[in-house]
Amino acid sequence: MPQVADPEIAALVRAEVECRWPDGVSGIDELVRYGLVPFGKMMGPWLLIRSSLAVGGQIASVLPAAVAVECVQVGAMMHDDIIDGDPQRRSKRAAFARFGEPSAIVGGDGLFFHGFAALAECQEAGVPVDRVARALTVLSQTGLRIGNAAIQEIRMGRRICSSTEYLNMIRDKSGALLWMACGVGATLSGADDAALTALSRYSDLLGVAYQIRDDLMAYDGTRAGKPNVSDVRNGRPTLPVLLAHQRAPREEQQLIERLLADTDSPVAERYEAMTRLVRAHDGVRAAREMSHRYARLAAKALDGLPASEHRAALAELTVPGRLV
Amino acid sequence: MPQVADPEIAALVRAEVECRWPDGVSGIDELVRYGLVPFGKMMGPWLLIRSSLAVGGQIASVLPAAVAVECVQVGAMMHDDIIDGDPQRRSKRAAFARFGEPSAIVGGDGLFFHGFAALAECQEAGVPVDRVARALTVLSQTGLRIGNAAIQEIRMGRRICSSTEYLNMIRDKSGALLWMACGVGATLSGADDAALTALSRYSDLLGVAYQIRDDLMAYDGTRAGKPNVSDVRNGRPTLPVLLAHQRAPREEQQLIERLLADTDSPVAERYEAMTRLVRAHDGVRAAREMSHRYARLAAKALDGLPASEHRAALAELTVPGRLV
Repeated sequence: MPQVADPEIAALVRAEVECRWPDGVSGIDELVRYGLVPFGKMMGPWLLIRSSLAVGGQIASVLPAAVAVECVQVGAMMHDDIIDGDPQRRSKRAAFARFGEPSAIVGGDGLFFHGFAALAECQEAGVPVDRVARALTVLSQTGLRIGNAAIQEIRMGRRICSSTEYLNMIRDKSGALLWMACGVGATLSGADDAALTALSRYSDLLGVAYQIRDDLMAYDGTRAGKPNVSDVRNGRPTLPVLLAHQRAPREEQQLIERLLADTDSPVAERYEAMTRLVRAHDGVRAAREMSHRYARLAAKALDGLPASEHRAALAELTVPGRLV
Repeated sequence: MPQVADPEIAALVRAEVECRWPDGVSGIDELVRYGLVPFGKMMGPWLLIRSSLAVGGQIASVLPAAVAVECVQVGAMMHDDIIDGDPQRRSKRAAFARFGEPSAIVGGDGLFFHGFAALAECQEAGVPVDRVARALTVLSQTGLRIGNAAIQEIRMGRRICSSTEYLNMIRDKSGALLWMACGVGATLSGADDAALTALSRYSDLLGVAYQIRDDLMAYDGTRAGKPNVSDVRNGRPTLPVLLAHQRAPREEQQLIERLLADTDSPVAERYEAMTRLVRAHDGVRAAREMSHRYARLAAKALDGLPASEHRAALAELTVPGRLV
């Protein structure tokens, strides 16, 4: 994910989180703080605040919602790490590896509930209550889209599917994650339908671009923080694998299929073989091009927003170099 | 939990659930329906609707919230079953045993998000939007209390604690579960502070009474549906165990402590030994008396509500015979 946290926005959100969950907090909040701190790239809060400003909103009114979105997204990651068995997150042990799976399940739940509680606080921060109610619908419906994608992803494991099926799944997984931020921010700030449509298309397209880029990093050697081998270990048919499979001759297609289904061979071996196949059949290059295409479309979608420095900042996220 | 579902209330909630998640629904909603149907005792929806009516509300306005509370409570159970490793729920396989743990984690999350989405619908059903926003705070804050209790319960496993510590934990675990229903219903229906205070005390006290009764059933041979051995397998120091421990001579105290800590002996053996010790040292009788005491206090708390058939119905739940 891009390091988008403009210093002022990041500082405000960090201060808000530190104030709510100071060092040494106990009970479920120990898990909540463990998930939130050290801070990640804060793409959610950043997108929420920029989307809000782009439609005429005020930072102070939506700051609790920025915390809300960070909570919900971190809660989803805490549960994802259990599902994927990924023991590292933000350069430390994942919550389940540190506190055990039961506590990490409950900790993720706590992050969701804190998210909704923080959203309700926007009323005291000056947002008209009918907008808070509409944002509640956006937050809960996007949570459901992400959950639906998670179920699809679990069921799509260890077999080849069409790239269309895969792209639809990641639109719900990563597109909805970005829309959660943009949609809640814009709704709280009274965006009109045209602005909401623009931001909805922008988030879906950018989410897909970002997810493809993230998938790529498993095979081009650049992924940091998270182990490179997670997708291979979990038999995830990500886009580079699917595109390489489309381009490979039948025998190597079968090799790819066997590697996805394989749960026995050492992961390092499977990873090396899959990386070789993905690169040999142009999966990395083809997926990178597709990611750039989605990013360009995301930039175009922003035409539906009034021009402003905030629209420009949102557009900057679509520049391939920024999508690191 | 008591079989409280008055036929009309139950029929309305069932129809609402069947309409939202009909047979054959797919994706995350397959998990959601699996958790909701067959219906449980529907104590949450029943309490929500009765509390609402007791303060002058309308069933039709709060019906989406009744579904919301059922969703959130079933989501919490879906996660609890993973944590406790209890493979049975509502006389069928628990979601994690049927669909796998990853899907059951995501399914529980989906039930939470559906709960918040359903709450938002109360506005279209006729509830003033400021009450919806206040109910959002009640729903999310009670979710946090329950999560906090779950973390405490995990940490209290396999060792003796004071009965006060235990009673505080179950007030947050089961009291908050009932308050989620009563508090959301009454808030949506415009209850004044006196009514909210009465219902809050009622739910906390009744929740403790119910939880002690539920704990007892592991040792008096009446628990149905859920395996009797779950608490012993998980080394849960429930009230009958704690009260027996208080009353036992030192040697048998040590036996109880060893049984809680034991993760090796066959569960059936541990269960038999613990049941013998709990009964021998009066744990069942002493805990039952305490449950009755809490139920009487719960009935008394209702004095703060205006007299009505709905208050009477809420009071009836505190009669020990009803608490089955």
